[in-house]
Amino acid sequence: MSAQVIDGRAIAAQVRREVTERVARAGARPGFVDLLVGDDPASVQYVGMKNRAAERAGMVWFDRRLPATATEAEIIDAIETMNRDPAIHGVLVQLPLPKESPAKAFTVLSAIDPAKDVDGLTPTSQGCLAMSEPGFAPATPLGVVELLRRCEIPVDGKDVVVIGRSLLLGRPLSIMLSQKGAGANATVTLCHTGTVDLAAHVATADIVVACAGRPHTVTAEMVKPGAAVIDCGTNPLPDGTTVGDVDFDEVAEVAGWITPVPGGAGPMTIAMLLHNVATAAGC
Amino acid sequence: MSAQVIDGRAIAAQVRREVTERVARAGARPGFVDLLVGDDPASVQYVGMKNRAAERAGMVWFDRRLPATATEAEIIDAIETMNRDPAIHGVLVQLPLPKESPAKAFTVLSAIDPAKDVDGLTPTSQGCLAMSEPGFAPATPLGVVELLRRCEIPVDGKDVVVIGRSLLLGRPLSIMLSQKGAGANATVTLCHTGTVDLAAHVATADIVVACAGRPHTVTAEMVKPGAAVIDCGTNPLPDGTTVGDVDFDEVAEVAGWITPVPGGAGPMTIAMLLHNVATAAGC
Repeated sequence: MSAQVIDGRAIAAQVRREVTERVARAGARPGFVDLLVGDDPASVQYVGMKNRAAERAGMVWFDRRLPATATEAEIIDAIETMNRDPAIHGVLVQLPLPKESPAKAFTVLSAIDPAKDVDGLTPTSQGCLAMSEPGFAPATPLGVVELLRRCEIPVDGKDVVVIGRSLLLGRPLSIMLSQKGAGANATVTLCHTGTVDLAAHVATADIVVACAGRPHTVTAEMVKPGAAVIDCGTNPLPDGTTVGDVDFDEVAEVAGWITPVPGGAGPMTIAMLLHNVATAAGC
Repeated sequence: MSAQVIDGRAIAAQVRREVTERVARAGARPGFVDLLVGDDPASVQYVGMKNRAAERAGMVWFDRRLPATATEAEIIDAIETMNRDPAIHGVLVQLPLPKESPAKAFTVLSAIDPAKDVDGLTPTSQGCLAMSEPGFAPATPLGVVELLRRCEIPVDGKDVVVIGRSLLLGRPLSIMLSQKGAGANATVTLCHTGTVDLAAHVATADIVVACAGRPHTVTAEMVKPGAAVIDCGTNPLPDGTTVGDVDFDEVAEVAGWITPVPGGAGPMTIAMLLHNVATAAGC
C-alpha cells in the first residue's frame, strides 16, 4: 500500500478538543438545537450523536421536536422562537424532513437566522459563501477542507475534481476550494451524473473528492499516482456495513493520500458543526 | 475563417423585442431604478443606456442619485424606500461604488429586497442560485446561457471551462452551467489567476467562456477545434477601442463558434436585465 491513510477519527478528535478548549477559555455556554421533525430512527440517532458531542464540548443542547405532520408554519414558528432565544446560538433542522411532512425543506431552512445558521444551509449563508463574504459554511465540506489543511495536502494551484453536486457537499465544496485564499485557490472541476467521461477528469486531478453516493465511483485505474483521494460516500450494504464511493484497497496502491470509510471524512462533520456553534456563540 | 460568428447584437435585439411584447401583453408598467452613487462618467453613461433600453421596452425608469460621499446608512435608506415603493419592481445599484464612498458594496446590495433584485447580487439571490431555487440570476451570466441556448450550442454533458471567478460573472456562470436541467448539466471547470496550466484545461473544453479581463487569455493553439468560445472580456486599449480576452482572428480559424468584442456577449447583459425586470413586474 502506497497511500498515506488519513485518520479522520484522530483529526476530528483533535478539532473537538480545540473547540472544547475555545469554549472553556471563553467561559461560554453555547446553546445548540437540532430540530427533529418526526421520529425516523436514523434521524433520532444522528441528532443524539450531535447532542452528546455538543455536551462533551461544553455546550448545552435543547431538545426540540415536532410531529412528522407539523405544518410548514408550525416548523417556521418553532425556528423563529429559537432565533429569538438568547440561550440558543446554533440552530439546525435535521434533514431530510420525513416523507409525510407537508413542509418544504428550503422554506423551513430559510427561516433560520443566518447568525445562528451553523449548518450553513440558509440561502443567505450559501450566498455569502459564493460571494466570499463571512458566514457559516456547511459542516461536511468544511470538514474536507480541514482534513486537507491538517494533512498538509497542497491545494493552492492544484487541480481538484469534486464528484457530486449536492447542496450539502459537492456544490459548496467546489465553491470553497476554488476561492482565492489560503487552503483554497484550486482549479476545481465539478463532476456529476451528467458528466460523460468521469475517468478523463479524475485522471488529471491532484485531489479527488468523491461524494457521488455510489460505490465503485472511483477505481484505481482512474487515479493519478500520488493524488489525494477523499471519500465522502456512505453507502449501506445489505449486510449492515457501509462502504464509500472509492475502491479503497485498490486506490490505496496508487494514491498519495486516501480516507477510509468509515473513519475518514465522516467524523469531521460533527467536529466542524461544533466549531460553527462555538463561533456562533462568540467563542 | 471556420467559426460561426455569433451576432450578439441581433440576439440581444430579439430578446429585447420579446421582453417588449411580454410587457405590452401584460399591460404592465414595470418600474426600474439603477441607483447612481457619485458621478463617474462611465457609470453615468451606463445608467443612461439601461434607462433608455428600459424605456424602449415599455418600462418606466426613475432617476435616483446620491452623492459619492453618501453614507452607507443613507444608501441603504434610499434602497429601503425603493423596496417599499409599489411602482418600482426592479432595483439595482450601479457598481462599482465610487472610490470615495464610505459604503461597502456587499452591505448595500444586501439591503435590496430579493423580489426586486434584478441584478441577482444579494446574498439571498446568489444562495438561491447555488441551491437551484427560484430567484434572479445576474444578467451577464444569464446572457451567456441565453446566447448558448439561442445558438443551439450543446451544453448538456459537455465540458465547459470558465476563466475568471468574479462575483458578477465567472462564479455564478460556473454554478448555472453545472446545474441539473435544460441548457445546463455541463461539467464545468472554473479557472482563474491561481490556475497553473490554463492551456491544458482549455484544450479539452467544448465550450470556453473567457471573463478574465486580460487580452490574449485565449489563443488559437489552446482551443479544441470546433469548440464554442464566448468572450466576455472588455479591455480598453490606449487608442480608445476595446478588445476581449480572446485572440479573435486566430481563434476564429479553430473554433466552431465565437463571439466578437464588441457585439458578442456584451449586448446580452442589458437584454437579460430587462428580462429580469419584466419578470419582477409579473410580466
